[in-house]
Formats: sequence, C-alpha cells, structure tokens
Amino acid sequence: MWSRGSGSFPSSNRLFAHLTCSVLSGAGDDFLSMAECQYIIKHQLEALRAEDETHVPGYSQAKLYPGKSIIRRLQSKGILVQMFPLHDKEELKRLSFSWYRTVRLSLQPLDAIRRYFGEGQALYFGFLEYFTIALLPMAVLGVPYYLFDWENYDKYVLFAVFNLVWCTVLLEVWKRYSATLAYCWGTLSRKKAFEEPRPGFHGVLGLNPVTGRKEPVFPSVSRQLRIYLVSLPFVLLCLYLSLYVMMIYFQLEGWALSVYDEDPTLWTEVLTYIPSIVYAVVIEAVNLLYRYAAEFLTEWENHRRESSYQNHLVLKVLVFNFFNCFASLFYIAFVMQDMLLLRQSLATLLITSQVLNQLMEAFLPYWLQRRRNKKMIRKVLRRRAIEEKELPLAEQVRLEADMNTYLGTFDDYLELFLLFGYVSLFSCIYPLAAVLVVLNNITEVYSDAFKMCKLFKRPFADPAGSIGVWQLAFETISVIAVVTNCALIGMSPQVKAYFPESATQLILWTVAVEHLLLGFKFILAFLIPDVPKHIRVKLAQIEFESLEALKKKVNHLLTGYELA
Amino acid sequence: MWSRGSGSFPSSNRLFAHLTCSVLSGAGDDFLSMAECQYIIKHQLEALRAEDETHVPGYSQAKLYPGKSIIRRLQSKGILVQMFPLHDKEELKRLSFSWYRTVRLSLQPLDAIRRYFGEGQALYFGFLEYFTIALLPMAVLGVPYYLFDWENYDKYVLFAVFNLVWCTVLLEVWKRYSATLAYCWGTLSRKKAFEEPRPGFHGVLGLNPVTGRKEPVFPSVSRQLRIYLVSLPFVLLCLYLSLYVMMIYFQLEGWALSVYDEDPTLWTEVLTYIPSIVYAVVIEAVNLLYRYAAEFLTEWENHRRESSYQNHLVLKVLVFNFFNCFASLFYIAFVMQDMLLLRQSLATLLITSQVLNQLMEAFLPYWLQRRRNKKMIRKVLRRRAIEEKELPLAEQVRLEADMNTYLGTFDDYLELFLLFGYVSLFSCIYPLAAVLVVLNNITEVYSDAFKMCKLFKRPFADPAGSIGVWQLAFETISVIAVVTNCALIGMSPQVKAYFPESATQLILWTVAVEHLLLGFKFILAFLIPDVPKHIRVKLAQIEFESLEALKKKVNHLLTGYELA
Repeated sequence: MWSRGSGSFPSSNRLFAHLTCSVLSGAGDDFLSMAECQYIIKHQLEALRAEDETHVPGYSQAKLYPGKSIIRRLQSKGILVQMFPLHDKEELKRLSFSWYRTVRLSLQPLDAIRRYFGEGQALYFGFLEYFTIALLPMAVLGVPYYLFDWENYDKYVLFAVFNLVWCTVLLEVWKRYSATLAYCWGTLSRKKAFEEPRPGFHGVLGLNPVTGRKEPVFPSVSRQLRIYLVSLPFVLLCLYLSLYVMMIYFQLEGWALSVYDEDPTLWTEVLTYIPSIVYAVVIEAVNLLYRYAAEFLTEWENHRRESSYQNHLVLKVLVFNFFNCFASLFYIAFVMQDMLLLRQSLATLLITSQVLNQLMEAFLPYWLQRRRNKKMIRKVLRRRAIEEKELPLAEQVRLEADMNTYLGTFDDYLELFLLFGYVSLFSCIYPLAAVLVVLNNITEVYSDAFKMCKLFKRPFADPAGSIGVWQLAFETISVIAVVTNCALIGMSPQVKAYFPESATQLILWTVAVEHLLLGFKFILAFLIPDVPKHIRVKLAQIEFESLEALKKKVNHLLTGYELA
Repeated sequence: MWSRGSGSFPSSNRLFAHLTCSVLSGAGDDFLSMAECQYIIKHQLEALRAEDETHVPGYSQAKLYPGKSIIRRLQSKGILVQMFPLHDKEELKRLSFSWYRTVRLSLQPLDAIRRYFGEGQALYFGFLEYFTIALLPMAVLGVPYYLFDWENYDKYVLFAVFNLVWCTVLLEVWKRYSATLAYCWGTLSRKKAFEEPRPGFHGVLGLNPVTGRKEPVFPSVSRQLRIYLVSLPFVLLCLYLSLYVMMIYFQLEGWALSVYDEDPTLWTEVLTYIPSIVYAVVIEAVNLLYRYAAEFLTEWENHRRESSYQNHLVLKVLVFNFFNCFASLFYIAFVMQDMLLLRQSLATLLITSQVLNQLMEAFLPYWLQRRRNKKMIRKVLRRRAIEEKELPLAEQVRLEADMNTYLGTFDDYLELFLLFGYVSLFSCIYPLAAVLVVLNNITEVYSDAFKMCKLFKRPFADPAGSIGVWQLAFETISVIAVVTNCALIGMSPQVKAYFPESATQLILWTVAVEHLLLGFKFILAFLIPDVPKHIRVKLAQIEFESLEALKKKVNHLLTGYELA
C-alpha cells in the first residue's frame, strides 16, 4: 500500500505499508494459491470498517462513518495513493521461464498462471491458446485456397460452410473446456458474493432495500433516463460519425483509384493502398477515443454494482467497435458488391490493426517504461552489483509503484473479439485471414505474457468461473457470420450459375439454407451439454455428499434432543 | 394405498391403508398447504427402506434389499395396486365453488388451486388464464378484420406485425409473472433433490459413480444407440407417413373440388368440407397412436432419471405433433400459395381439433365414468339418504380408486402449444383464430377444472417453479412465427404492389425485415429481466440475511473456541 504523505505525515516522503501472506501459505504448501492469498488479504483489507463516527487520524476532513470501509475512504480522499500486490521475483522467474522466455512447441502453463495471477487471467490465456489452436485447421485449409484460387473466390463456398460449422463447434467446446478448467480451479460453482456499491457510486443517503442499512441510494429511474436519453443518443451519434468517416474513406479511395487509372506507375499503385491504411489507423484512433467517452458516460450513469457497470461498458464499446471496424466491409460486400475490393480492404484492415495493436500494447509501454525506469534501474543495479544481494523491498515497491496498472482483460478480449469477427464474418472471401490471426495470436501470447510479467504492476486476482459476457459476444458474432457467409455464397458466380434463369429462386434457396443453418446451429448449441459429463458427475457427487453430511448432522441433532 | 390381496392376505378382498396428515396441518393452520403435506407423506413413504435383506411378509418372491425403497418393490411386484391421495370433500366443495361452479367474471383462485393440487397444477391453470387474457387484444382486433376484410387478406399485414411483437412480449411477461407466482409459493429457487432412478429403469447391478452405492446401471452408449438407431429413424418414418397421409388428403380435396365444379349443389359444397374434417380427425387419431408409440419407445430407451425420460418424450411428441398438425398448412401456404384454401384449412383444423379435444378430454371420460359408477353411486346415495351422514371412508376410497388417473399436465400443455401454433403461425391469414382460441380456452378452464375435481383421482402434488420445457417450446413457436408471418406478408398482393418491377427486391426486403424482427426479438428477450425487480430484491434480501446469520454463527463458534 502506498500512502501519500500530507497532514501529520511527513510531507516530503512517501510511506508504504507492506503485508506478506506467509501466514496463509507456507513455502511449498499448495493449500491456497498465491492469487487466492492475495484475494483474501484484499478482501480483509476492504472489510476493515470504522466502528464509531470519527476521522482518519491527522486528516480531519476524512470522516469515517460506522460500518463504512476505511480503505475506500482513504482511497477516495487521496490519502492512500495506490494498493497493489508485489511481484514475487522467484515465482515470476520460474513462471516466465515456463511461459514465454523459451520458444518451444508446448501449451502454456495455465495452472502456474492461475496460481500467480488468478483465474480470470488464466482463463484469458486459456481462451487465447484455445482460439489459436482451434483456428489451425482453418489456417491450414486456407493456405492452399489462397495460393491456388486467388481470383475465382467462388471456390471458397466449401471453405465457408466448413467455417460456419467450425465456429459453432469451437464455441461450444470452449464452454466445456472452460468448465473443466474452472472445476479444477474450484471456481465453477462459485457464487457471487453480495456486491458492495462500487467505489465511484454516489447518491443521497437512503435505505438499501436488501440489507436494510443506510447507504447512498440513486434512483433507478434517473439512471434509466441517463442511459436512454444521453448514452443511447450519444452512441447513435458516434455510429453516425463513424459512417461519415467511412464515406470520406470511400471518396479518398475513389480518388486514389482515378489517379492510378490516369497514370499507372508504381507510386500511384502504392497510393491506392494509402486510404485503406489511413482508414485503419483512424479506426483504431477513434476506437480509443470512444473508449474514453464510453468509460466517462458509464461512470456518469452511476451504476451501483461493478458487474452492472462492466456490462454497460462492454455493451457500449462492443457495439461501436463492431460497427466501426466492420461497417466499411459490410458496405463493400453488400452495397458495392465488389469482392476484390472487399478482399483488399479486409487484408489491409486486419494487418494494420494487428500491427498497431502489438505496437500499442507491448512495445509502446515497454519503451515508455524503459525510458522512465532507466535511471532508477541503473542506480539499483549499481547498488546491487556492489552488495551482491537481492533488491531491497523498499526499492522493489518504489519500482513497481511506477509501473503501469493493468486494467483487466477487457482490451485483450476486445482484440480477440474483433479478430474473430475478421476471421468468421468474411472468411469465404479471404481464407488467409485465419493464417494471419494464428500468427498474430502466437506473438500475442508472448507479448501479453511479457507485458503481464514485466510491464505492469501485478494485478489483483479475480476469481472467475468463465469468460462471462464475452462468450455471448463471440456467439453473437458466430450467428451474424452465418448470415453474412450465406449472403456471400449466394452472391458468388459459381452458385449463381446453378440458377441461370431466375434470381428469385437463387435468393429463396440462399435464405432457406441460411435458416436451416441457423436452426442447426441452435439445435447443436442446445444438444451439446455446457459441462462435460465427468465434471457433472463430480458436481453431483459433491452435492450428494453434502446432502448426506447434512442428513447425518440433522440425525445427530435429533438424537441429541431425544437424549436431552 | 390399495393393496391387492394374495398370498397370506385374504384373497377375496382388497385392503387399503389410509394415512391422514392431521399431524402436519391442523385445521385452519396455513403453515403447510394440503399439497405440501401430501408431498411430504409421499416422500416419507417412498423413503421407507429395507434395513436387511429379507422379503415382504407372506410374499417370498418379493425380495427386499438393504437400502432399497419398500413401496417401489411392493408396486413393482403388484402387491401394492395403487397409491393416491384422497379428495377432501369439504375443501373440494369450497374450491369448486370459487373455481368453476359459478360463472362469473373473475380470475381463477390460483392460490386455492395450489393449496389443494400443488404448484404444478396451479401454474398450468395460471398459464391457461394468462394465455387467454393475453389473446384478448388479438381477438378484439381480429373480429373487425374478419368482418370487413374477408377477401383481401393483404390488409392483415399490420395485424401480423402486431401479432409478432405481441407473441414475444407475451412469453417474456409470462416468465416474470410465473416467477412472481413461484416466489409467492416458495418454489422459485427450489433446488432439484438428488434424483433416484425412475421406477421403470432396469440394468445390470453396478456402482453409481455419484453415490458410490450399488444400483442398476445401464451404459449410456446403449441408450444413445437406441435413441439414434431406433427412436430417431422411427420418428422420421412417422413424419414420412404423416406426409403420405397429407398427400392423400390433398388428392381427396382435389377430387371433392372437381365434383363440386361439375355439379355445384349444396350437397357437393358440403362435400368439399368433408376431406378437411376427415383429415383433422385422422390427425387427432394419429397423434394419439403416436403418443403411445413414443411412450413405449422412451420407456425402452431406459432413462435413469424421470426428468430425462420426460424431456425425451416431450421432444418426440412435440416434433411429431407440430409436423402432423402444421405440415398441410405449410404446404398450402408456401408450395401451393393458395391463401383461400389456407384460411379454410386452418379454420377447419382448428375448429375440428377443438371440438374433438373437448369431447375426448371432458365429455368422454365423464360419460364413461358415469356409466361405470352409476350403480355404486346409486347404492351409496341410497345408504346415505337413509343414514343422513357423510360418505364412509371405505366407500370413498373405493369410489375414488375406480376413477381415472390424472397423467400430469402434459396433454393440457400440448393442446395449448398447438393452439398457440394455430394463432401465431398463420395469424395474418385468419385473424379469427384468436377469437376461437379464446372461446376454447374459456370452456377449457371450466372443463379442466371440472375434470380435475370430479373425474380424476386427486393427483400427487408436484412442486414446480416454472412451466419448464414448455416455455422453450412456446418460444420456439414464436420464432418460427416470425419467419412464416414475414413470408406470408411478403407474398401478399399489397406488399407486392410496392415492388411492381422486381420480385428480387421484394424478397430481399422481406428477408431483411425478417432478420431485423428476429434480432429485435432476441434483444427484447435479453433486455427484459426474467424475474421482476421486487422479487429480485426479495431474493437478495434472503441471501443477505442467510449470509449474515452464517457470519454470526461463525463468530459465535470462534468465540467459543477462544473461550475453550
């Protein structure tokens, strides 16, 4: 814990408090993972509550009320600057060696990641790995398609059908795999604890209908008004602006093409790619800007619970990012019906966004931090070389306090979500997309692992049982993919050749096939159980045993009463 | 309980055992409802287990094994003939007066039904009533449409759109209403108890992986083989036969029309209606036959749990009944595209099936039972008239033992399911359907109530928290309804008039609107919470209080340890 000195504390200095969890986990003792110890300590710290109405010693303006969290008050008053778990150098070294320091063909050490970072992180890396492996067959199939059939994309019909079935099966199997992981980690049947109001929540003091305690209350009607009268119009406005930018891009594209047609040289050919690249960069920039706006708006909507805040934020960001990234592709595919341009745009968007993402995510923070920490590290290293000893704790805390804060898996999932969209929505046009995404994901594993271990403060563990709302988001994409791919197939010359006389017949057949595929998809999702059988048996076993134990206890009590 | 005499019991006589639950519920004491007492007694009876390996006294062939239910063994050996709760004459009189004996404009006494018959029954009647009331606006709208626009059905477009939105909202609101009911009855968060194997389940003696106890085990692979290699082909064969019957009907229909065209008299006009009516009767008969086959097959699939048996039975019956009832309508609508014939067929099918159902369900059993019981009732009444007293218990048991056994709400829901299909799938063709269904439902309430109270043995209570798999079935229909109604609207001359040049444009627009409606439907279903807010607050309250109590208990224990 960092506390900024002011008031009665020496103002020129920063104080830090350090807690170890050696009580909870002895060395080599696997009863609790490091992440779990961390979670417990954080919970205990946050549960420190004031007993009487008083104020923080030395800070008369920081009032404490009975039953309110002390840590939260310290944070909101700026007395406590930040609170974070320290990295464990030993463990981190071991983890990073088995994870990303050696390039080899093996799976990630998910259990070790979970032990160090917690279940939420481990599930993200599990999903990233699973997604990459699941894309391999598509990537392997895609290469020959790309190499031998570049110009007649109608051969991609089979590929698209395979893709559709694949997407559905992939997501269903992930659900089962994730349930298996969560079962092994003990978070599968985890019940959400009663949620306290999130730190930013404010309102008039009122009565909580659930607990009957006094706490800030914010009328649900006001929140609904803010959502529907401000946030929704704002999102719609942003979508409109995004459309406007898209139209400018198409004009630029047209202008570049006309220049190339007039004077076809190498330079003008390069010029035809410029608008796409610029547009891709603009998309990323706009997404980033919008992200801040969405956070601000969702904060202002004043949600009481963290989960509700997260859901509204995810919804806002997903809708806009989806629209912003894919609107131009939809326009090219279904309004302009220019398949060559579609393929070119898709490739440019995909490659540019991947390059930008890797830059923004790993190299930029790395570079920034290196610059910032250069001096300190050099100083520390010099001292270390002299003393030949471990980095002293105070130095370590100071070093890590300056590191960036990891903001959760949101951005990482969002990136995967958009990549999944590029792969599945227009796969029959550009089979190489899967190859690119696989390559990206492999570097992503390394850069994410590096960034988690080296660039960020160690995050607090988040005991998650599934990837939550993202499962729904990916499934939505896979439904939309059925529609787009069927439409693309219906528009392909090969299929058109089957119905030489009547376009109506062609469309009716396409729609019928699409409906059948959608129906098949839903039946498949319904038939495949979400939890594998052996896990279900184990869960039933646990429930049965607890019931038996309860029975025994009741019998014991009854016998006790009879004796008494 | 009835036990048939044989072995050491006097063989010329029937014995019955009678248990009252006066211990559990004193008069006027509302701590437990009658249905709950009944459920507890049944549970206790079924939990009577043999302690040692022995046999039923007097029945050396009826072996008892340690830990096995005695009642089940008695039932399977035919020693115990039947087991049923007796009607409570007083309560029944009160219930029937407030329920169906007086015709008046008021809601059903759901709480009283629940007290007497249990939650499963009460939810069925709640759903029937809700469904009827929800159809009222459509019925009211439908009459003028029917009266003034009989021949140009293209005016029904608006009606169809209204209908689509209505179906979605209706089912979502029902979920909330049902959650409210179930909360009031205490069955909302009811956990399924650990399920024992169903009575008909058999297999080699093996180890249950969950309980670790010895019990009959049937390999899941054999069951899957039976399902996919026998049941599935059988269902497909039945669907094919149903198609075959449909084709015969169309031939007959064509023949009748040709006769009418040659010689248009009143008699030949009547003749044109005959095939439809005969077909409707055949459909009902085939449904009934198929029902027996499905029960036999599902029994043979040897499901371990009752719930799994029920799901497989429901799936088999639903798919076939849906196909059997609606195939001809789909054929007329989308292959023949004859809207006049569609309307006529729909009306004939709907009316015939309603009349047949009411006959089969209420009047036939009533008539059969009257004939059977005439003598006994006369005898009893004579004696009663002489003694001016209550019917003695032994007589009552004998009387009720001869009554039909109520087989659960399956058939009642199935009927509602098909009616819902008639109303929603082709509503834009025949707006009067809603009126007919409302009329049918009103008589259905009375006939079902009458049959529950007078014709059947009192059923065992079934503590249900929702209408279960039927919610899914109704929602599936409402999704299919979007597709059929959009197609019908797209085929209407009024809409066709908007696209005079291009049929392709018309189809594309229709498909686009359909997709938008489907998307809207899913978003709506997602946005409307399944449980109303005040119920969620109450549930959270309960959870919070139990957590607080647990905390106190733990603190108490910890203090105890400290003291010790």
